Amino acid sequence: MSAGFLSVLSQAQRYITERVRGGEPVIDATTGNGVDTLFLAKQSGPGGTVFAFDVQAEALERTRARLANAASAGERLAQVELLLAGHEEMSTRVPSEYHGRIAAIMFNLGYLPGADEKLTTQPDTTLIALVSALMLLRGGGVLTIVIYPGHEGGDAEAAAVEQWVSTIPPTIAQCVMYRFPQKTASPYLIAIVKK
Amino acid sequence: MSAGFLSVLSQAQRYITERVRGGEPVIDATTGNGVDTLFLAKQSGPGGTVFAFDVQAEALERTRARLANAASAGERLAQVELLLAGHEEMSTRVPSEYHGRIAAIMFNLGYLPGADEKLTTQPDTTLIALVSALMLLRGGGVLTIVIYPGHEGGDAEAAAVEQWVSTIPPTIAQCVMYRFPQKTASPYLIAIVKK
Repeated sequence: MSAGFLSVLSQAQRYITERVRGGEPVIDATTGNGVDTLFLAKQSGPGGTVFAFDVQAEALERTRARLANAASAGERLAQVELLLAGHEEMSTRVPSEYHGRIAAIMFNLGYLPGADEKLTTQPDTTLIALVSALMLLRGGGVLTIVIYPGHEGGDAEAAAVEQWVSTIPPTIAQCVMYRFPQKTASPYLIAIVKK
Repeated sequence: MSAGFLSVLSQAQRYITERVRGGEPVIDATTGNGVDTLFLAKQSGPGGTVFAFDVQAEALERTRARLANAASAGERLAQVELLLAGHEEMSTRVPSEYHGRIAAIMFNLGYLPGADEKLTTQPDTTLIALVSALMLLRGGGVLTIVIYPGHEGGDAEAAAVEQWVSTIPPTIAQCVMYRFPQKTASPYLIAIVKK
């Protein structure tokens, strides 16, 4: 028997687990501490590839260490390409033979925990990245966006993402929102499945 | 592999299936055509009880027929008490020995399909019913509310319910919203698990 509801991060992972087959390519658009990267590397698994983006070398270094730890503990992981680049470069940095074949893409907006809180994702580049992500996905592939309205500028980014989502034609993709209405400043999830 | 996301009604049913044990008492606060009543009668099952409220005799008659059909098809159902009463009477119409023992309560707001569309649930009585429902639930029990913002008056009822939900202390219950952001006039779900 379940007690409370899944957290936003667990719900995002569930949507991905339900849709990614072993060996499929996936993308972590905001690598950060590498928690989602490791999750994706397990889901994609041996023979698969994870493209992991971050603008901070520190984030990629933390992620490299996390992946190495997991591998030495015996986890069977996909190959991970750590890319020191903003996610708005996704459509050029992910090789063209992968376009339309990506099974899952994760976004975790906001700033890198424990680093410079001034360095956050920005609405302009986030929207470029989201449009790219929707193009890169295969049919039936899933895009998850964890949105943080609580930090400075976070509410504007949240509004920009929601506005963009509301304009996606239902013939292109289906979108769902998962949110805790008692905590309006807390992170929430928008997930998108491509038709 | 899953394709699209669960519908609002399927997600409500999933939250209930994950939490109701066979034989536990449950409530359908808005019986309507009896679809949720039958679902609850299956979940509660033999030895269980469903209290089903509606202000329209026609709704209860349709529900009685639906339950009889299912029973003659061999479904093993809970005992169903069909109550011709508004859900705002829930705390008096459900016998006191059941208070604090109810495992699940379903609300489906709006009007009865195929009947008088002028006869809709109303914010005042809906809120009385929701407060009662939260009191009747056992710890770990779940309350689902499907909200229809698209009909006349539906947006005001939606706002009233969301306002009420936002004031529930997290020590009392956890609330989650499940919504399709491409379709702002479409029904959406708020689910509440009592601590």
